[in-house]
Amino acid sequence: MKTLLIYSGGLDSTTLLHYLLDRKDEVRCLSFDYDQKHKVELIYAKYWTDKFNVPHEIVSLAGIFAGSALTGDKPMPQGHYTDISMRQTVVPNRNMVMLAIAASKAIQANCDAVAYAAHADDRGVYPDCRQEFVTAMDAVLGLCDWKKLSLITPFLGMTKKEVYKRALELGVRVDKTWSCYEGGETPCGRCGACSSRQEAIAS
Amino acid sequence: MKTLLIYSGGLDSTTLLHYLLDRKDEVRCLSFDYDQKHKVELIYAKYWTDKFNVPHEIVSLAGIFAGSALTGDKPMPQGHYTDISMRQTVVPNRNMVMLAIAASKAIQANCDAVAYAAHADDRGVYPDCRQEFVTAMDAVLGLCDWKKLSLITPFLGMTKKEVYKRALELGVRVDKTWSCYEGGETPCGRCGACSSRQEAIAS
Repeated sequence: MKTLLIYSGGLDSTTLLHYLLDRKDEVRCLSFDYDQKHKVELIYAKYWTDKFNVPHEIVSLAGIFAGSALTGDKPMPQGHYTDISMRQTVVPNRNMVMLAIAASKAIQANCDAVAYAAHADDRGVYPDCRQEFVTAMDAVLGLCDWKKLSLITPFLGMTKKEVYKRALELGVRVDKTWSCYEGGETPCGRCGACSSRQEAIAS
Repeated sequence: MKTLLIYSGGLDSTTLLHYLLDRKDEVRCLSFDYDQKHKVELIYAKYWTDKFNVPHEIVSLAGIFAGSALTGDKPMPQGHYTDISMRQTVVPNRNMVMLAIAASKAIQANCDAVAYAAHADDRGVYPDCRQEFVTAMDAVLGLCDWKKLSLITPFLGMTKKEVYKRALELGVRVDKTWSCYEGGETPCGRCGACSSRQEAIAS
């Protein structure tokens, strides 16, 4: 199967990259520069695509998103990933924009599917990580071209902890992935992404 | 109702702009610069948004699409709009990308709906103008944010000829809209968009 992966360089999508390669998909990766404060994640993405010699494209979405703590328009909330305050990190309709562009690139590259690493812990905060959103996106991806395109989200029913377990099984070097939402040189340890990662790794 | 219109400056979307204003929607417009050869359409879009004093944003999608005659990657096919050769003018997943970005902008501007001017004559050539695509997009737009967003496509069941009739009823200055796919100063008269427009107007 020829699969285009939406790839951030974080723990979840790096695990998904390993997962797809492990099952012998022919993978290509697409990353986005969307004014995120944590643009450093793209360096980690490049580390892995270079290592696996996987085609990798970075698309600029400069100026398209606004109004989120992730793009620096609000202060970054601190605390637990599932807190209601984390909704300030929602980038309006980010996943649909990424999936739509990924589908365009997938059609151009004659791929069969688009993959992204939504997981169960995301769904209380990010409307576009909910099961019903993913089901609806799969339906629309199947209709956007004359040839059917599928949506692959193998981690959707898994908690972050379970994704981490899968990462270890697949031999992912977790230290070579980036989760922190802040733009620092080292993870801040206090944002939602840091707390969620620490929690997944701790147990 | 607060509505964001995807607006090209062509006959169909200019008619939809008049339609929405006529029914007293609070309208804002979004256009796209996607390397289309017929970028001149954006001048017509600006003519109307200036005239009606409607907020208008142009988003650049440079480099995102490729592989279509519309972006100059293939020669423009000549002939009837519904010919199979017109599939060369399909820009891969263009409408979903535009709808996804429009939804992001609509959420940011607190709109209730996104509108676009797909009509019945499009559906044999453009997979993303089919009724089933529009129904699936409406479902996914309703799930992409915590607040439901709707998709408005009042011309979906109408032929281009019927859209033109509606334009005349609404008093649209049809000469102040642009349809031709080529990048010339005057319409080429031979591409699919020109032939479809001429056919609609002739009868």
